[in-house]
Amino acid sequence: MRKKKKVSESYTIMTELVLPNDTNTLHNLMGGRMMHWMDIVSAIAAQKHSNRIVVTASVDNVSFRESIKLGNVVSLEAQVTRAFNSSMEVHIKVYAEDIPAGRKVKTNEAFFTFVAVDQMGSPIDVPEAVPETENEKALYDGALQRRQLRLILAGRMKPHDAEELKAIFNLQE
Amino acid sequence: MRKKKKVSESYTIMTELVLPNDTNTLHNLMGGRMMHWMDIVSAIAAQKHSNRIVVTASVDNVSFRESIKLGNVVSLEAQVTRAFNSSMEVHIKVYAEDIPAGRKVKTNEAFFTFVAVDQMGSPIDVPEAVPETENEKALYDGALQRRQLRLILAGRMKPHDAEELKAIFNLQE
Amino acid sequence: MRKKKKVSESYTIMTELVLPNDTNTLHNLMGGRMMHWMDIVSAIAAQKHSNRIVVTASVDNVSFRESIKLGNVVSLEAQVTRAFNSSMEVHIKVYAEDIPAGRKVKTNEAFFTFVAVDQMGSPIDVPEAVPETENEKALYDGALQRRQLRLILAGRMKPHDAEELKAIFNLQE
Amino acid sequence: MRKKKKVSESYTIMTELVLPNDTNTLHNLMGGRMMHWMDIVSAIAAQKHSNRIVVTASVDNVSFRESIKLGNVVSLEAQVTRAFNSSMEVHIKVYAEDIPAGRKVKTNEAFFTFVAVDQMGSPIDVPEAVPETENEKALYDGALQRRQLRLILAGRMKPHDAEELKAIFNLQE
Amino acid sequence: MRKKKKVSESYTIMTELVLPNDTNTLHNLMGGRMMHWMDIVSAIAAQKHSNRIVVTASVDNVSFRESIKLGNVVSLEAQVTRAFNSSMEVHIKVYAEDIPAGRKVKTNEAFFTFVAVDQMGSPIDVPEAVPETENEKALYDGALQRRQLRLILAGRMKPHDAEELKAIFNLQE
Amino acid sequence: MRKKKKVSESYTIMTELVLPNDTNTLHNLMGGRMMHWMDIVSAIAAQKHSNRIVVTASVDNVSFRESIKLGNVVSLEAQVTRAFNSSMEVHIKVYAEDIPAGRKVKTNEAFFTFVAVDQMGSPIDVPEAVPETENEKALYDGALQRRQLRLILAGRMKPHDAEELKAIFNLQE
Repeated sequence: MRKKKKVSESYTIMTELVLPNDTNTLHNLMGGRMMHWMDIVSAIAAQKHSNRIVVTASVDNVSFRESIKLGNVVSLEAQVTRAFNSSMEVHIKVYAEDIPAGRKVKTNEAFFTFVAVDQMGSPIDVPEAVPETENEKALYDGALQRRQLRLILAGRMKPHDAEELKAIFNLQE
Repeated sequence: MRKKKKVSESYTIMTELVLPNDTNTLHNLMGGRMMHWMDIVSAIAAQKHSNRIVVTASVDNVSFRESIKLGNVVSLEAQVTRAFNSSMEVHIKVYAEDIPAGRKVKTNEAFFTFVAVDQMGSPIDVPEAVPETENEKALYDGALQRRQLRLILAGRMKPHDAEELKAIFNLQE
Repeated sequence: MRKKKKVSESYTIMTELVLPNDTNTLHNLMGGRMMHWMDIVSAIAAQKHSNRIVVTASVDNVSFRESIKLGNVVSLEAQVTRAFNSSMEVHIKVYAEDIPAGRKVKTNEAFFTFVAVDQMGSPIDVPEAVPETENEKALYDGALQRRQLRLILAGRMKPHDAEELKAIFNLQE
Repeated sequence: MRKKKKVSESYTIMTELVLPNDTNTLHNLMGGRMMHWMDIVSAIAAQKHSNRIVVTASVDNVSFRESIKLGNVVSLEAQVTRAFNSSMEVHIKVYAEDIPAGRKVKTNEAFFTFVAVDQMGSPIDVPEAVPETENEKALYDGALQRRQLRLILAGRMKPHDAEELKAIFNLQE
Repeated sequence: MRKKKKVSESYTIMTELVLPNDTNTLHNLMGGRMMHWMDIVSAIAAQKHSNRIVVTASVDNVSFRESIKLGNVVSLEAQVTRAFNSSMEVHIKVYAEDIPAGRKVKTNEAFFTFVAVDQMGSPIDVPEAVPETENEKALYDGALQRRQLRLILAGRMKPHDAEELKAIFNLQE
Repeated sequence: MRKKKKVSESYTIMTELVLPNDTNTLHNLMGGRMMHWMDIVSAIAAQKHSNRIVVTASVDNVSFRESIKLGNVVSLEAQVTRAFNSSMEVHIKVYAEDIPAGRKVKTNEAFFTFVAVDQMGSPIDVPEAVPETENEKALYDGALQRRQLRLILAGRMKPHDAEELKAIFNLQE
């Protein structure tokens, strides 16, 4: 029988200081650097869940609304939400802090998906992910919907077959 | 009247060599590094269209199906698809080439959105983007749908109001 | 009266993935890279305590007994132990984890000292640091001894005047 | 019989230009970057003495009193002081130079200890280090004291047994 | 018989954004960073021509007349001009663009030479390079002269034997 | 009257350890990284001579005959050879050392030219460079010839007017 593991066991926190080379000419953190950090922190979370080497399978839509300045401290928190055979969805929350100004804001949220692989690079099954808190359960439940959207966007599922997604479009057939 | 500019004027191509620090323990390019490069090449395309400083506003779903090895040459091609007031959607195609092996494959596609800003960081209008070829027109037309999806995912539009998106779910009401 | 702040408010955790450029020819993490990370995580902790820009004042003796391999995940935890006028001592614990092997070990401990400065770079007072747990209190108490050792090693105190230190040499006069 | 080698044969000098990413928000060199450079230059000196791969074993107390600015040229001079079986102590002196201003100051001094290892990573004996000048002899003699301090601080020697160290506390028993 | 390949098949374009760490204290791109980029783009062009691993054999005189600013976009275009047994000459043109200012200038030109090697690092023959356009033919013809100059400068040809070069000194003997 | 300065006062030595990201797929140092280091060490030498900010004006032909491996220690020695108004020629010698193997070889030599500039970036005169040893005098004398070659190659002098250069082609007119 498939092994089970609490989602909280994959919790990972990473802290980065925004340095000059991470910024654009307005001295704001560039989106690509942020994505790079998100990828590392969420890969570590997926590794913790699977005890395997993992490779990035997909990145869901991320939006950047807050500008993050040079010298700010960025913290990224990642945790597995749900596992499907060899793949795991990871939820990432990003906070930026201007410590001298005493200001900390949540700047982004994202979902990355990873596949666990063996030494040859072939996919390999991972433990089931068990949510415990209300929030973890909500993320676990939403994972199905997000997965359908990913499959549609990657051209691997027909929109018409995406039962979970149709629901959010509030359609009675 | 708003200035017009051909989408092809924003065409940008970037070439990167996969170095050791870009790779994971399987010697494959890490997804986060790829996202970083995508952000730079598409920001340059958006700059070319707007002649402005630009900031990343959002990244659409990206999937990673092919592994790219250490020593491979990665080329990224970016071009604006459509402009909306101060924002521009950019389409990116990524190819990986193992030159000694004579193998070149398309590995990824992505859409990044940028906002043009003035020196104070405030959004500022950009020229209209004019598609010419069949392919550019298809990307131009699809931009509306992708924009609705982005707004829904960012919680700024209700699914029920997304007329363009509903269409792809093939629903007759 | 001087402001007080709990030492636990400065707690900072940083996670790093050991990449090829961080390693020597045996594929082990180089000591200098580790010191670099220790400096960043402890500077952030000192910033959190002081809400000021901080500069590194000194690094206490650090020993490296465990080798950390390429691909390992390194976590660094930092927390202020005690504050003296404008300076703060920060305690750092480092853990290395080989996640696929399910092995996590504590590899290093260190004390860094920072000075809070204003925009001109002049030292400025920081809040008093208040320990709460047994462990925090022990670190708080030991800080005086370590400070004497630092002053002696920097040639700013005569060994004979170091009352706290003499005690550890267990000497009855 | 054990091979002998003059300490001066390990002399190594390294020059670095302070670039934006090496600095904090006051445009001063960060302490961690300096430690990183110290580790590289002293590892090279230890390699020259031992003709072996070397790993960092410990870093002695370092204090940072001078701020070093963006654009400054930093020179680091390293030389082995003494060898003990498989370990070597290296002395490092650091100078910062603001060349356009014609100002050069000694900013730091440090002692790093390295262990020579074979291809398997196991410690291996190194040549005896032979001091020649007065200064080299003084550093050679002091090495014993510093070594006792290191062992005490690492919990591997009881303070009471540290005969060399007790002397500096000026204690007649 | 030796394989032939059009020079245009090696055409490579690379785009770089000038980041803080690439610049000196006047915020201008440093020459060494530019050389680094030139080496990468031209190595890729040489790889495309030879389908081999290539190593840099020489760099011809490069002059830097234009300053390139932080935030500029630099494009580098490289193409093989001619092949000689295992070596290939590559021509590189560099353009710098201040996109917000709508200013693009050609800043440098250079010739790099590469040698194709096998997995052991031994030189191996490459296809003949076939020029087609007028410009490609002129570069092809000039390659002989530049090669003689390189051999003289490397001390591997006597100036007196350099028939091609003597011509440019306009000498009737 | 123009200030004079000994060329030996500009002597600069830099030491670098070849790290994974500096190497190609054969684990050899890439030429472009070497050029980058050459630029930094020679810029520092030119700064020392002029006590000014300096910008790279040109790089003379460099050839790469020896491969330098991962883990090697590279030392670069730079010294001004001669000054002309606001420009200075710098001579660079590069050595690579495989310390465990006890092998050190001279791998490259190069001449870089720099222009001293004021805070506005305008050229400004530098002290005369005074050679003392035989070797320094030979480099000083040769500087005129190399300068003519540079001017011809940059299209700023007609070959026919290059009296110094013609001499090396051994031509009696």
